[in-house]
Amino acid sequence: MQIAESFALRAVGRVESPLRSPDDAPRQADEGAPSAWLVFDSSVRDALGSVRTGDELIVLTWLDRARRDILVVHPRGDLTRPPEGVFTTRSPHRPNPLGLHRVRVTAVDGLRVQVDHLEALNGTPIVDIKPVLDQDVAAR
Amino acid sequence: MQIAESFALRAVGRVESPLRSPDDAPRQADEGAPSAWLVFDSSVRDALGSVRTGDELIVLTWLDRARRDILVVHPRGDLTRPPEGVFTTRSPHRPNPLGLHRVRVTAVDGLRVQVDHLEALNGTPIVDIKPVLDQDVAAR
Repeated sequence: MQIAESFALRAVGRVESPLRSPDDAPRQADEGAPSAWLVFDSSVRDALGSVRTGDELIVLTWLDRARRDILVVHPRGDLTRPPEGVFTTRSPHRPNPLGLHRVRVTAVDGLRVQVDHLEALNGTPIVDIKPVLDQDVAAR
Repeated sequence: MQIAESFALRAVGRVESPLRSPDDAPRQADEGAPSAWLVFDSSVRDALGSVRTGDELIVLTWLDRARRDILVVHPRGDLTRPPEGVFTTRSPHRPNPLGLHRVRVTAVDGLRVQVDHLEALNGTPIVDIKPVLDQDVAAR
């Protein structure tokens, strides 16, 4: 089975946020991340057509300031915790630095969508948006 | 703000599944998707090091048989439902065909991880694995 193949992920938008550097960013969105605007490329206008204020969405980003060669981290950067493989952490540093952010839409203005909390730096590329489904939230 | 940039997403593994064609695949994982094996590349062995049986994980895949030029769909393929922008659906067809799958680990054997339900076709590239966090499941 061939594994080491690669795919061209395209930015469909960018994050506009007051978060300017990794030092500003909280570790998790529920720890004080600010609201942000998602600014989309006009090429995906139709994909965005049904997004409404109040929607709960999952935003996927490309964490372009993360490192791809770090496979093991101390969770939450806490050196007193034992190192862990990145696939069981939410470290931005990982082979494919994809960010996953659950948000609520607070405003829609054409290609601009405001969301309540987003722990992504200003300028971070957006690569996909999905609705939250029951199966994401229900314990099985 | 420059938007139309692209990034090289690398396969870190592949799905081994009895699902061989899109016609076999259920619409959502909670609608009868079979168990599957995630088979990882040896280059990410350390990233995987802390995955254990019983873990709840989010698997991100690259849906390599999806179309990237479809921006509007009838949800669940049901022509009686009004068309919707793909960003508010889980259609595999979308500008970046990333799949998001919540799973529970049922076995770990070196670079092979078995999961309970996965609605991805055999051979689908895996691009990331993340733990489920409270913020993913809690209504805010």
